[in-house]
Amino acid sequence: MGHHFRSHFTKQLTTETVGTQVTVNGWVQRRRDFGGLIFLDLRDHTGLVQVVFNPDISTEAIELASQARNEYVLSVTGTVVKRSPDTVNPKLTTGEIEIQGEQVYLFNPSKTPPFLIEDGTDVDETLRMKHRYLDLRRPQMQKNIKIRHRALQVVRQFLDQHGFLEIETPMLTKSTPEGARDYLVPSRLHEGTFYALPQSPQLFKQLLMVAGFERYFQITRCFRDEDLRADRQPEFTQIDIETSFMERTELQGIMEKMFQVLFQETIGVTVQAPFPRLTYHEAMERFGSDKPDLRFGLELIDLTETLQGTSFKVFASAIEKGGQVKTINVKGGANFTRKEIDAWGEIAQSLGAKGLAWITFKDGQPKGPIVKFLTPEELQAIQQVADVEAGDLLFFAADSKQNVARMLGEIRLRLGRTLNLIDEKQFQFVWITDFPLFEWNEETNRYDSMHHPFTMPRKEDIPLLGTDPGLVRAECDDLVLNGYELSSGSQRIYQREIQEKIFQVLQISETEASEKFGFLLEAFEYGAPPHGGVAFGFDRIMMILTGQQNLRETIAFPKTAQAYDPLTEAPAAVDADQLKELHIRLRK
Amino acid sequence: MGHHFRSHFTKQLTTETVGTQVTVNGWVQRRRDFGGLIFLDLRDHTGLVQVVFNPDISTEAIELASQARNEYVLSVTGTVVKRSPDTVNPKLTTGEIEIQGEQVYLFNPSKTPPFLIEDGTDVDETLRMKHRYLDLRRPQMQKNIKIRHRALQVVRQFLDQHGFLEIETPMLTKSTPEGARDYLVPSRLHEGTFYALPQSPQLFKQLLMVAGFERYFQITRCFRDEDLRADRQPEFTQIDIETSFMERTELQGIMEKMFQVLFQETIGVTVQAPFPRLTYHEAMERFGSDKPDLRFGLELIDLTETLQGTSFKVFASAIEKGGQVKTINVKGGANFTRKEIDAWGEIAQSLGAKGLAWITFKDGQPKGPIVKFLTPEELQAIQQVADVEAGDLLFFAADSKQNVARMLGEIRLRLGRTLNLIDEKQFQFVWITDFPLFEWNEETNRYDSMHHPFTMPRKEDIPLLGTDPGLVRAECDDLVLNGYELSSGSQRIYQREIQEKIFQVLQISETEASEKFGFLLEAFEYGAPPHGGVAFGFDRIMMILTGQQNLRETIAFPKTAQAYDPLTEAPAAVDADQLKELHIRLRK
Repeated sequence: MGHHFRSHFTKQLTTETVGTQVTVNGWVQRRRDFGGLIFLDLRDHTGLVQVVFNPDISTEAIELASQARNEYVLSVTGTVVKRSPDTVNPKLTTGEIEIQGEQVYLFNPSKTPPFLIEDGTDVDETLRMKHRYLDLRRPQMQKNIKIRHRALQVVRQFLDQHGFLEIETPMLTKSTPEGARDYLVPSRLHEGTFYALPQSPQLFKQLLMVAGFERYFQITRCFRDEDLRADRQPEFTQIDIETSFMERTELQGIMEKMFQVLFQETIGVTVQAPFPRLTYHEAMERFGSDKPDLRFGLELIDLTETLQGTSFKVFASAIEKGGQVKTINVKGGANFTRKEIDAWGEIAQSLGAKGLAWITFKDGQPKGPIVKFLTPEELQAIQQVADVEAGDLLFFAADSKQNVARMLGEIRLRLGRTLNLIDEKQFQFVWITDFPLFEWNEETNRYDSMHHPFTMPRKEDIPLLGTDPGLVRAECDDLVLNGYELSSGSQRIYQREIQEKIFQVLQISETEASEKFGFLLEAFEYGAPPHGGVAFGFDRIMMILTGQQNLRETIAFPKTAQAYDPLTEAPAAVDADQLKELHIRLRK
Repeated sequence: MGHHFRSHFTKQLTTETVGTQVTVNGWVQRRRDFGGLIFLDLRDHTGLVQVVFNPDISTEAIELASQARNEYVLSVTGTVVKRSPDTVNPKLTTGEIEIQGEQVYLFNPSKTPPFLIEDGTDVDETLRMKHRYLDLRRPQMQKNIKIRHRALQVVRQFLDQHGFLEIETPMLTKSTPEGARDYLVPSRLHEGTFYALPQSPQLFKQLLMVAGFERYFQITRCFRDEDLRADRQPEFTQIDIETSFMERTELQGIMEKMFQVLFQETIGVTVQAPFPRLTYHEAMERFGSDKPDLRFGLELIDLTETLQGTSFKVFASAIEKGGQVKTINVKGGANFTRKEIDAWGEIAQSLGAKGLAWITFKDGQPKGPIVKFLTPEELQAIQQVADVEAGDLLFFAADSKQNVARMLGEIRLRLGRTLNLIDEKQFQFVWITDFPLFEWNEETNRYDSMHHPFTMPRKEDIPLLGTDPGLVRAECDDLVLNGYELSSGSQRIYQREIQEKIFQVLQISETEASEKFGFLLEAFEYGAPPHGGVAFGFDRIMMILTGQQNLRETIAFPKTAQAYDPLTEAPAAVDADQLKELHIRLRK
């Protein structure tokens, strides 16, 4: 067997190897019989090479080659020769040469694959997933998995070089209150009790800061027992980071460099830094979103001041109730047909709005159903504030601040896509800062933490904790890229008196706090340093680096809703004994 | 808060920084008040620095310093000054300087720690684990965790440089038949069914080879629901590797280089390669173990041939039954007291032997209870074969081959330790090869796989599958270091006809094979390449690199038998709702 193993990977076979006898191993991509010769395209993980079999060279080799079919695994020995100029294939790195086949060894035959091992074939996903080992042979999947590998290495090397220690934290741990549902793991050793799989290593990394490690990272698997979505898997990978004695801005700067290196070394894209910063307030006002896509304009323009005192009831009523009137200026939108404009109105309705008021300025003159309700002065002011030129279209929303943001934010995004305003080659990072520390929960009639209860309030806002908690801003930030949230991070509270004030606002009693977070609170009594960190969704980053819309294209063995594959996909039915034993344990 | 953050890590404060104003952050290691001055040793993760507070410099600073106690978290600003020659501390990298303290900022006070943050303190492990965040501050733990970090980086970089791709495999997967008990994870999405946490990514990595990735690695968490031991945790880290189209010897060569780099870059030890190779047979014959510690001699010497036809019944009866007579020559052992020799006999008995026959050669003359049963010619032959010199002691075992190996192998190890024959600074790697493919199971009266049923038989032994399976050797190897098994690896079967023969030997029916391994067997129908791999126990490697006898010293948050700490240690009791829900699911 041994002597059949390769001397070269296919990509190493350039014109420099002409005249060399080589052995290559791989899979038959294609066989063509032509003019008494047999041509095999042999594929390995580095590429493809063409092998020609000629009866004048070896009758035995051509006989074996004639039996080869797609996906057969072969070893081929032969001499590298230059192709004639008319047969050079410029699409292949090995396109200037071919191998004159002298010996063939069949490692393994293959059944006919249920789909072609090629990109761009429109194969049913269920079939692809069922034969994932074949699907993974396609060039795009090979490329995606290689980018994922490279990203893992680049991030690790970068963090190592910047003094971060990779420290493994437990997977079998205690359930801690986070957003989603835990996976529980019954323990045989401690009967009747359960571990939880971590939703994040949050508490462990804070303990590591108390332990004095100062710069921690981990690229680790986390778990949430939630439904599958195109961008969500029940197990996911997180780049988890925590630091002590470090300003938020210093950490942001390190992270920016990390993304520069990551994009450069995985997909060759140069990212500009520092990244822009937007406060939560500004992001919501200008883009109607806390994860704005900055690759295009169409910003939300506030007309609330401008239209103060208007007699147009729709606008006036929103303003009176403390809401807003805002517009988006669609450049050139005056060319929209009435049908197109109505379609946008329907979209607005589907988003919960009563309708979508609009004005066109085809020749600079305002036209549309609402024009008659506005005074010439108001129209003039609107044009000025919204910077209207001939050919523009204005869409309006008038409602509560939240509703205006939600509706116009979504309309803006859809306009950006529909009007092809988005340059897919751009990577627009932005830090969103100054999130509110709390959000009011209408159901429970009290404040919830927007991030988690250990998030540090901005120092200057601490006095507001006792008077107006809703105004307290958090020492935290999200990193947003092209409209996607990549990370969520914050400085943590490390001093007891501030933590107690936060628990008061959240109406968490001392007993409750001690039950839920007692271990961490106790640790903080023994010299906790100022610390903070960030967690990046690695899977989301992978979708962006590979340009994939579906997370499943970036993971070797993803889970899918169809549970066809017991090994890689669905949880398995346990056998009767295991089930019985679990019963017994649970009854205790 | 911000301006209190460090300008320098303590280790950066050498004589070159004398005269500079610096800010350092860290924990108070010790405070001494002496002659109106206050001395603080401030510790960060890079080391220690001494700060001196003088009332002439700042009364405010010395006032704050006077309140500082052990483990308080401070920021200190001051000027670096040279120490007077008589106060230089050569044990510290910062021992030639100190900081003239000018400002102090208290980040956080600390309760009095329940134990000193120092190495070598004899603290109860339960207390250490309860306050693991304090225990982790000790220099030894800091060092161990840093070695672990470095090892993770070095191994990854090495494998990346050698063309291996890191590919993440699922944690929520199907139960597959491996040695130990699986942890099961009930799924909410697929009610009544359970995932299993992986004992290893074995099947996935073989699928990745079928998928054409050719060189895979992962440093990943694996799980076994087993009891805790000093060298075993229910969750453990594995360096997992698989390759296609590669000779076993080539893979061994790459792994040897990996260990050379690993030992060099973590603990500065130069490891010689290539590593020696011993067949399983030779290891068992010479050392009585398939994981021999090669740091010392005391090899087992076979006297079976020599004593053929002896009239000494104990030996004769073992030989007649097809067993062995073997000896260990303890150089200088003739000086053992009778009491010492008897103690070794008791050890042999505790290992299941009837006793431990012995002969001393104090002045070259054989003495001992069994001498009279042996002829002068036999005694002469024994001395010659066992290379006896004056002063030696021979220990004998006569029993079945297995029992002799087990007993003398253990006696050899204990002699090595007791006689201080082991140089703890040596690292003796050895590959153990040619394991039997099958072992006979007396209980079930059939063969079991020694490794797993996909292990490739040696090509030349394939004909024996039909005639004498017990003689078939496997294409596999263990890497052993100083008597510890670091890895287990093998070439895998990739051709159906061989796999079917193996299943026949194992008496696994087609139905059973299809149920247990159907997914993999189906994949093998579509062009599986020749492949093989290896898995290293990373935790064991860490114990060796850090010189620790207990695995818990090398992991930040290990599990212990005492379940005192609900976050890091024990599984948590789930709440009533969760329990009820699990009941319902399980009853379905």
